[in-house]
Amino acid sequence: MSNPTAAILIIGDEILSGRTRDANMHYLAGELVRVGIDLKEVRVVSDDEPAIVAAVNALRSAYTHVFTSGGIGPTHDDITADAIAKAFGMGLDVRKDAYDLLGAYYAASGLEFTDARKRMARIPEGATLIANPISGAPGFSLENVHVMAGVPSIFQAMVADLLPRLAGGKPVLSQSLRIDLGEGIIAEPLGKLAKEFPDLSFGSYPFIRNGAYGSNVVIRGTDASRIDAAMTKLAALFAGSTA
Amino acid sequence: MSNPTAAILIIGDEILSGRTRDANMHYLAGELVRVGIDLKEVRVVSDDEPAIVAAVNALRSAYTHVFTSGGIGPTHDDITADAIAKAFGMGLDVRKDAYDLLGAYYAASGLEFTDARKRMARIPEGATLIANPISGAPGFSLENVHVMAGVPSIFQAMVADLLPRLAGGKPVLSQSLRIDLGEGIIAEPLGKLAKEFPDLSFGSYPFIRNGAYGSNVVIRGTDASRIDAAMTKLAALFAGSTA
Repeated sequence: MSNPTAAILIIGDEILSGRTRDANMHYLAGELVRVGIDLKEVRVVSDDEPAIVAAVNALRSAYTHVFTSGGIGPTHDDITADAIAKAFGMGLDVRKDAYDLLGAYYAASGLEFTDARKRMARIPEGATLIANPISGAPGFSLENVHVMAGVPSIFQAMVADLLPRLAGGKPVLSQSLRIDLGEGIIAEPLGKLAKEFPDLSFGSYPFIRNGAYGSNVVIRGTDASRIDAAMTKLAALFAGSTA
Repeated sequence: MSNPTAAILIIGDEILSGRTRDANMHYLAGELVRVGIDLKEVRVVSDDEPAIVAAVNALRSAYTHVFTSGGIGPTHDDITADAIAKAFGMGLDVRKDAYDLLGAYYAASGLEFTDARKRMARIPEGATLIANPISGAPGFSLENVHVMAGVPSIFQAMVADLLPRLAGGKPVLSQSLRIDLGEGIIAEPLGKLAKEFPDLSFGSYPFIRNGAYGSNVVIRGTDASRIDAAMTKLAALFAGSTA
């Protein structure tokens, strides 16, 4: 049986404007590999409701899971919850469990529970909350769409709460070999080797170091012994040119 | 007249597997702001022809420009040129101008012009070449799709060759203000201010520093005097809480 699949949807003008370099995609990609959920696509869209709705609907029908990042804070540009509700054709209102959770958080931290903060208790009916131990305001899962914060520390805490609840697959294992030859030299024998192991994926990632070409070859799959066998053949092919 | 729009399409299993952290999206986002091309969407897909074809066709009809990154090297997993040709319903064969350019590059550098390297001279008919001063193999522009390498140094050199040839718009200017108050406090007055300046975009980006909440507010637009006016009002609203 093949692994569950996933997409990440990053919502944020700050990424598209070049102001901020996204960190959540790389973090979650690494976590998904560990639990055997295959990340197939990432999209970044702006803080624009039609763009978010279109992306959510395209991705949730194509993949087992959709993870979103960003746009669930209290300010006027935080429109993700509204967009998700709209994508599902649902209304959105303050929900008592989320309201009580936020109220308790602000009472304990001595911060004022402002109207803007109450807005963060607007959670679609039927959604499951995702805990936010950092700043209180929860994320939520609605069917296969998991809505999380954009601030990296909060995003990571939410992923830690969410991932153990999702059914994983076989973790994807990988081994890599650095070969001090350009891709133009290794391409042909590497392509032949890849055909011998159709159950594995062979990636070649070129680099330039001190003016010389090299290639990092990564072999991925779910069966460690097959990866070992392919890696042994690969190393023998390029003996003398490996680091 | 509004600015031209753009999408970036990143092709690479190495990003989706969490092995490599993409650098090209952030780089190009910053360059596009400078020349007044509005980046609206980014997608990352795997080294899979149907996925690339679908993304290219969706993006090239939605935006003025599509910039792709990755998958144009000589190895078996470099399938971007084939996928672009397929997306346009064209064949793909070695083109003399690209072949001569590669031949001259390898002759000058003393590297062998292998069959795998000759594969990189496969360029769709009608496409314009994008220069690669780093490793010879060119990118290309086919209509509004600009196909570039994934290695960051080569990607950046190709962007430097390409961007001056594209019509830009008004550069998007921005100013930011750090406010040492949580978003839940600034949300309401900030939302009102944003409504006073509908021609500008107001982004609020929360942070946590030494356990205290703060917000970076970024005001963006194409008219410097309007941004100045909004920033003056913003600073007055939160006088005493700004850095």
